[in-house]
Amino acid sequence: MTHRTPVTQPVTKRKLLVLHGPNLNLLGHREPDKYGSMTLAEINAALETLATERDAELRVIQSNHEGILIDALHEAMGWADGAIVNPGAYTHTSVALRDAVAAVDFPVIELHLSNIHAREAFRHASLIAPVCVGQICGLGWRSYTTALAAILDYLDDRADR
Amino acid sequence: MTHRTPVTQPVTKRKLLVLHGPNLNLLGHREPDKYGSMTLAEINAALETLATERDAELRVIQSNHEGILIDALHEAMGWADGAIVNPGAYTHTSVALRDAVAAVDFPVIELHLSNIHAREAFRHASLIAPVCVGQICGLGWRSYTTALAAILDYLDDRADR
Amino acid sequence: MTHRTPVTQPVTKRKLLVLHGPNLNLLGHREPDKYGSMTLAEINAALETLATERDAELRVIQSNHEGILIDALHEAMGWADGAIVNPGAYTHTSVALRDAVAAVDFPVIELHLSNIHAREAFRHASLIAPVCVGQICGLGWRSYTTALAAILDYLDDRADR
Amino acid sequence: MTHRTPVTQPVTKRKLLVLHGPNLNLLGHREPDKYGSMTLAEINAALETLATERDAELRVIQSNHEGILIDALHEAMGWADGAIVNPGAYTHTSVALRDAVAAVDFPVIELHLSNIHAREAFRHASLIAPVCVGQICGLGWRSYTTALAAILDYLDDRADR
Amino acid sequence: MTHRTPVTQPVTKRKLLVLHGPNLNLLGHREPDKYGSMTLAEINAALETLATERDAELRVIQSNHEGILIDALHEAMGWADGAIVNPGAYTHTSVALRDAVAAVDFPVIELHLSNIHAREAFRHASLIAPVCVGQICGLGWRSYTTALAAILDYLDDRADR
Amino acid sequence: MTHRTPVTQPVTKRKLLVLHGPNLNLLGHREPDKYGSMTLAEINAALETLATERDAELRVIQSNHEGILIDALHEAMGWADGAIVNPGAYTHTSVALRDAVAAVDFPVIELHLSNIHAREAFRHASLIAPVCVGQICGLGWRSYTTALAAILDYLDDRADR
Amino acid sequence: MTHRTPVTQPVTKRKLLVLHGPNLNLLGHREPDKYGSMTLAEINAALETLATERDAELRVIQSNHEGILIDALHEAMGWADGAIVNPGAYTHTSVALRDAVAAVDFPVIELHLSNIHAREAFRHASLIAPVCVGQICGLGWRSYTTALAAILDYLDDRADR
Amino acid sequence: MTHRTPVTQPVTKRKLLVLHGPNLNLLGHREPDKYGSMTLAEINAALETLATERDAELRVIQSNHEGILIDALHEAMGWADGAIVNPGAYTHTSVALRDAVAAVDFPVIELHLSNIHAREAFRHASLIAPVCVGQICGLGWRSYTTALAAILDYLDDRADR
Amino acid sequence: MTHRTPVTQPVTKRKLLVLHGPNLNLLGHREPDKYGSMTLAEINAALETLATERDAELRVIQSNHEGILIDALHEAMGWADGAIVNPGAYTHTSVALRDAVAAVDFPVIELHLSNIHAREAFRHASLIAPVCVGQICGLGWRSYTTALAAILDYLDDRADR
Amino acid sequence: MTHRTPVTQPVTKRKLLVLHGPNLNLLGHREPDKYGSMTLAEINAALETLATERDAELRVIQSNHEGILIDALHEAMGWADGAIVNPGAYTHTSVALRDAVAAVDFPVIELHLSNIHAREAFRHASLIAPVCVGQICGLGWRSYTTALAAILDYLDDRADR
Amino acid sequence: MTHRTPVTQPVTKRKLLVLHGPNLNLLGHREPDKYGSMTLAEINAALETLATERDAELRVIQSNHEGILIDALHEAMGWADGAIVNPGAYTHTSVALRDAVAAVDFPVIELHLSNIHAREAFRHASLIAPVCVGQICGLGWRSYTTALAAILDYLDDRADR
Amino acid sequence: MTHRTPVTQPVTKRKLLVLHGPNLNLLGHREPDKYGSMTLAEINAALETLATERDAELRVIQSNHEGILIDALHEAMGWADGAIVNPGAYTHTSVALRDAVAAVDFPVIELHLSNIHAREAFRHASLIAPVCVGQICGLGWRSYTTALAAILDYLDDRADR
Repeated sequence: MTHRTPVTQPVTKRKLLVLHGPNLNLLGHREPDKYGSMTLAEINAALETLATERDAELRVIQSNHEGILIDALHEAMGWADGAIVNPGAYTHTSVALRDAVAAVDFPVIELHLSNIHAREAFRHASLIAPVCVGQICGLGWRSYTTALAAILDYLDDRADR
Repeated sequence: MTHRTPVTQPVTKRKLLVLHGPNLNLLGHREPDKYGSMTLAEINAALETLATERDAELRVIQSNHEGILIDALHEAMGWADGAIVNPGAYTHTSVALRDAVAAVDFPVIELHLSNIHAREAFRHASLIAPVCVGQICGLGWRSYTTALAAILDYLDDRADR
Repeated sequence: MTHRTPVTQPVTKRKLLVLHGPNLNLLGHREPDKYGSMTLAEINAALETLATERDAELRVIQSNHEGILIDALHEAMGWADGAIVNPGAYTHTSVALRDAVAAVDFPVIELHLSNIHAREAFRHASLIAPVCVGQICGLGWRSYTTALAAILDYLDDRADR
Repeated sequence: MTHRTPVTQPVTKRKLLVLHGPNLNLLGHREPDKYGSMTLAEINAALETLATERDAELRVIQSNHEGILIDALHEAMGWADGAIVNPGAYTHTSVALRDAVAAVDFPVIELHLSNIHAREAFRHASLIAPVCVGQICGLGWRSYTTALAAILDYLDDRADR
Repeated sequence: MTHRTPVTQPVTKRKLLVLHGPNLNLLGHREPDKYGSMTLAEINAALETLATERDAELRVIQSNHEGILIDALHEAMGWADGAIVNPGAYTHTSVALRDAVAAVDFPVIELHLSNIHAREAFRHASLIAPVCVGQICGLGWRSYTTALAAILDYLDDRADR
Repeated sequence: MTHRTPVTQPVTKRKLLVLHGPNLNLLGHREPDKYGSMTLAEINAALETLATERDAELRVIQSNHEGILIDALHEAMGWADGAIVNPGAYTHTSVALRDAVAAVDFPVIELHLSNIHAREAFRHASLIAPVCVGQICGLGWRSYTTALAAILDYLDDRADR
Repeated sequence: MTHRTPVTQPVTKRKLLVLHGPNLNLLGHREPDKYGSMTLAEINAALETLATERDAELRVIQSNHEGILIDALHEAMGWADGAIVNPGAYTHTSVALRDAVAAVDFPVIELHLSNIHAREAFRHASLIAPVCVGQICGLGWRSYTTALAAILDYLDDRADR
Repeated sequence: MTHRTPVTQPVTKRKLLVLHGPNLNLLGHREPDKYGSMTLAEINAALETLATERDAELRVIQSNHEGILIDALHEAMGWADGAIVNPGAYTHTSVALRDAVAAVDFPVIELHLSNIHAREAFRHASLIAPVCVGQICGLGWRSYTTALAAILDYLDDRADR
Repeated sequence: MTHRTPVTQPVTKRKLLVLHGPNLNLLGHREPDKYGSMTLAEINAALETLATERDAELRVIQSNHEGILIDALHEAMGWADGAIVNPGAYTHTSVALRDAVAAVDFPVIELHLSNIHAREAFRHASLIAPVCVGQICGLGWRSYTTALAAILDYLDDRADR
Repeated sequence: MTHRTPVTQPVTKRKLLVLHGPNLNLLGHREPDKYGSMTLAEINAALETLATERDAELRVIQSNHEGILIDALHEAMGWADGAIVNPGAYTHTSVALRDAVAAVDFPVIELHLSNIHAREAFRHASLIAPVCVGQICGLGWRSYTTALAAILDYLDDRADR
Repeated sequence: MTHRTPVTQPVTKRKLLVLHGPNLNLLGHREPDKYGSMTLAEINAALETLATERDAELRVIQSNHEGILIDALHEAMGWADGAIVNPGAYTHTSVALRDAVAAVDFPVIELHLSNIHAREAFRHASLIAPVCVGQICGLGWRSYTTALAAILDYLDDRADR
Repeated sequence: MTHRTPVTQPVTKRKLLVLHGPNLNLLGHREPDKYGSMTLAEINAALETLATERDAELRVIQSNHEGILIDALHEAMGWADGAIVNPGAYTHTSVALRDAVAAVDFPVIELHLSNIHAREAFRHASLIAPVCVGQICGLGWRSYTTALAAILDYLDDRADR
């Protein structure tokens, strides 16, 4: 195994699910000191730019409903190669979302805008992370682009094997 | 503020400390299913390649000694612009290392090869993360390159402001 | 009181709610070693067969939405004689579902496909069970038919008194 | 500062959101010893009467869906001066609702019909209360009118300053 | 039962005990950001005004002594129709005060100036609340007037039944 | 795999151990509101009737001695195809009984007359359940017949595979 | 009600069970500083003397077997008016013994030679005490005679009512 | 050593302190189902009768003030041979009372009217008991007379040695 | 800033409150191995000597009453420049005393004769210390003189700034 | 003192009790990967061989009954010089067995076949070990021979002193 | 015993070890609001000045290495009369340092610059303090001089006895 | 498999690492009642004697530095067949040492001089033991020789298979 991305790209485009959890629709409008001043639309645009560079396709969903987030993961089982998920507050309370992530047949990376380990104690533990590939937090809007690059690298590495 | 790295690079090279904690010298030789098959030398080479691309300079230290890791952080206060730290097992036990990270005058990103949230309960909590910019885990050797890119982006963003 | 089901059946058919919680729509397709290879449709068919034998009528609902499960319980207050509920992951997190079960005017039996006591510690405790008649777990798809038989027996016994 | 409501009323009417959480649609029909014999419609009528007296306007929403409650708070950001919220069982489980209350730009008072401190231990702690102005509980339907009067007083006092 | 205060007032005046716990004698003089700028005398005056409006009579006691607060509750058994109590720090430590509240033959409402749920963890739980009618907190000096109105309403409602 | 019991019965009779734990000899005589009014003899008779219908053979043992219950499980290793066990209070305290259940070469189903999840907190957790096929509780004497049917179905299903 | 034992004695003799738990057969021979220097036989003699004075009859059982202690309680249901029990170490571990005490139809007083509250933390809590009339500890051999007198007084008081 | 009270009485009368903690002044008037229907005066009379029989002298103090109870223990150091203390609610909260009991030069027996082990969990543990001779609870008013007899026996036994 | 006490003394004498908590009146008389053999009077004399040397004035209060200690702190608000407090057992139980220390407008140093960290676990944590300047323990009577010197140094340093 | 076994042997043979706890009668027949493939008889034979070499005499008892294990320890008080005990599952639940070990007048070494620290969390703590000389675990059948050698060495060393 | 330092000084100079733990080399340079603006060199100078006044000799060691701090304590066993130790972050994590302090033959006083009780919860407990003479914290650089004076007083007092 | 050491010895000498953790260099000089009176040199001599008898070779390292102990384990990967480790206080705090033991390619047995289960609670749990073959404690210096014999037997048994 080598540790460099392979020169030859995969023949078909990667298709990825981007899932934004509760209250993330408010991004940029509320508490910019905590979550940054970029709006969700701007973050999605940054993700699209990176996806184009990496020849990937994104479907983006935001919801404040735990059930809709679960439905979205289920629905993606037919087409998605991977997903990046910011579960927001459901990170700490939703076993149902955890079970959905564990059930789907594609890898998931969890991400957070803020450094959850530097906030209230009840935000340190994640119910979702143990069934993900990994977790990225604290990089602001770059947590998203970092996670997107990471899931694409992960898929490349796996294809490589 | 825009969310793209600025076109004009900083005049001087970024100087970064890369800190590897206990037992990481064994990488590639032991438990490859848990930590991957790359050696520490190979990881350092990948980091150097990326640093060159990003016009940065690295100083790399590995030690099994808590005290040496602390000394290295202190010593870097004269020259480093930032650091990436894989504290290994000290993540969960070293308040002294935490205090050192909190004391130094440059930002630090914590990283882990494995997904610490998917391992034994005592590995879920990090004493170091609350005083870092953020934490990245579970991406194997790419946790290192991801962290390196992230700290450089962080410094660029900060310079930008 | 005798401990045998009475010979004379109740004049009107029993009407029962069958409630499937989050992720159960994936049954048979995912993780068959944990949840068995039968699909939800096959389980529902088995329940219908048993209901016909016992002269009962079923209304079956599956949802990944906590709110829809609660709504379904409320709606059933007009017509249901009893219910069997597999709350899935909401077993461990939903006080709202518990309150709904406590509020409705018909008895409920909780069931689980897998033996929740043999899984992760956070799956051992049920918020729902204390307000149910009882709990059945670990029998695979037969947990459903066993629960259906049990709720019918329970209603017969109560009618008997 | 004086401690009496100012003689001159605010020029524009106060607009307030009234949020009823899960299972509160059953009020009056179920467990009157625990929650009183008034229906939700009767409570809303009492609130309207008081609002008219205080020259305020109400929008009232009840839902068993955590996501709808969060959406309602977000939607109110354009028009509401304040809110009173009975989060029902989500009081004890919803970090997402807490984050929504923390994110909106108007003050919120939490209320409960029953004295939650005199019930099961898991009902004593509120995830929502720390981001509210205050909490009122145990006064039956008057918890609602008391909370409504309190949020109006709060807004008057703030305007006063 | 109706949910409006009855038109005919009780024949005799309500007599109420107002109990202020430890350190409340300092109100207005210390930490106004936490407890407001009104003095205890001003709060008592506001309470007297409201009592007069509601045709009630108050006896007001402040003490830093747990025993005196208990004695006051005992003494009131001969004459009081109800009480409002701000137990201050004894909220969290005094089982003796709790037992006194439980023993007396009149209803008690607990109140706090600040939102105790938004302060240190040891202030979230109340030993007193479980034996009170309810709890009101976070409304500043209006917690007192709100509690006074609430206990009078409670007594009216009870007389009504 | 089908989800119906196979038409052809197993050639030899199933042999099953029925184990009643401590204090169950008092059934029907004591606390009928908690454990029902049937005696242990009546329960055993109901089990025999069902066993005859299902062409199975039972050996029934009740003991208040932890050691005798363990001995009985060991002794059954020569002849039993399965067991149903009501461990009574040993459910919550006996690691030795758990180890015996784990050690024997036949499947075991745990059952309880009452809904242990609706009783004192120390009765919610079972040391035995994690090494059983599953657990049934809250159905009164029918917990026994339900468990007997379930273990027979389990053995049929296994034979089927 | 008066607080003196009635002058007229009950017509029939009180019959009492005295139960000594594990390791109490060693009394007087081992660790006299902890348990006193009297043997179990001497304690039994002192109990007999007191029983004679109070016109009562004792049956005394010591066993190191949890099951035998439970059997003894069951057996006493036919004849005993009350019991005094020193459960020894089973105080802290036997839910089965607790259930037996709760099940029998006569009152039980728990006693301990030593002050269990002054010993290791795991000896402070008693599983048995909550289902007894009361608990006496720390009086050495007199814990026994005190408990015997107390159970007789208790029976007298009850007869009196 | 013999286990019978010596024939020759001590030359001087025993002098004993009887200490009643908070809320015990209400005895007989409040919650008779929990604490019995005897008043504190009646209990004191019963104690006096017993003291006369045993040729002892009592000084009785009741207070709702932690500090007064401590003062009383200190004051008794000049004259008391022993004490019986019902610390009421201070049992569970007063380290200061514990330290006073530990400091005085006479033995103390703790007593409770009700069976504290059968009440709320926070009443099970006693801060005082570990520094007493022993603890007696659950015998109603007889807890007092039993404790008085026990402390006198204790003093006799000690004199005997 | 220099780290030496300034040569010129403050123009007016420092006025200090010395507060001794519960049971400290017994010093020297009881348990000298734990608390030393000096009486409280001797400690006060040592403090006076030191105060004279440092040109300070002391008011000394000892009480076993939590309320009196609080009153004393309040009363000192008019005149005291600082205080040293040995809260005795109230260290571990009195939130009211903590709030008083937090409320007063002069600095406080907490002290203990014995090393509280080497005693029972419940004595390790202090409710008072977090609102003090610091804590001194384990130096016997010198804890007092050390604390007195420390508070004077603290005041000098502050004046110096 | 030297650290070598003395040349001159004790005049009389050492007599030792070997105690096997619950489920150990199944050794070799069940779960050989956890407990090894040797039967209990083979282990006993290995122990006899070693005992003969060391000129010691063994009495071996296995029981699944906690009471019988306690009885055996008591009985051995007349003749045994020491004991080795594998308490099996009673290690984690039997305070009664602990008290028996503490009561007997000969030293005891605890042993386990498997490494209990590498198994479920509830097997890590031993109630018995604190009253033993020491503990040996994880060496398979050699845990027994190692313990036997160790207790003989311990007795030799003690005789030596 | 008197409570004044004896007039006659010890014949030989006191020799003391001063131990500074991890990160203290950064003093004055980092986070002056938390640790003050004096450098370690300035603190050492202040200690030397005081040592000279008290006719004592110091050896001062700072290290970030737990092992070096332990070695330093061991090495001092040949010559030191006492030590003052600021264990820094090792206060909360190092059992090894605790054991070293417990092992050496001279008394140790623990000190902290900041008030550890007013910081994060994990800094409240000290593993080292239970084996020290006492603990001093919160006095800034004067914690050092106070500790030095205290250890000298302690040695004088001990010599006095 | 037989349970006797094979007659034919391994052709090459076993090479073993003996690791002594922090403070063990003080053995014999300090606290002989806790750790025995033998010095580390004497223990090493005893180990050498036994190694010679068993035809094995030892390399012995003692360090107070966690890092040096880890380095020593790493270094031994080239040559060691096994190791015995007394981690001293690092037993309870060093995840890094645990990871080193888990990483090396030879078996390790943990040992302690004292019975850690009979000491402070924080010494009962071992972070190292779960990744060792087993644990031996409480046998004084013989814990070392027992562990050495055990690791050699373990290696022989493994070679045998």
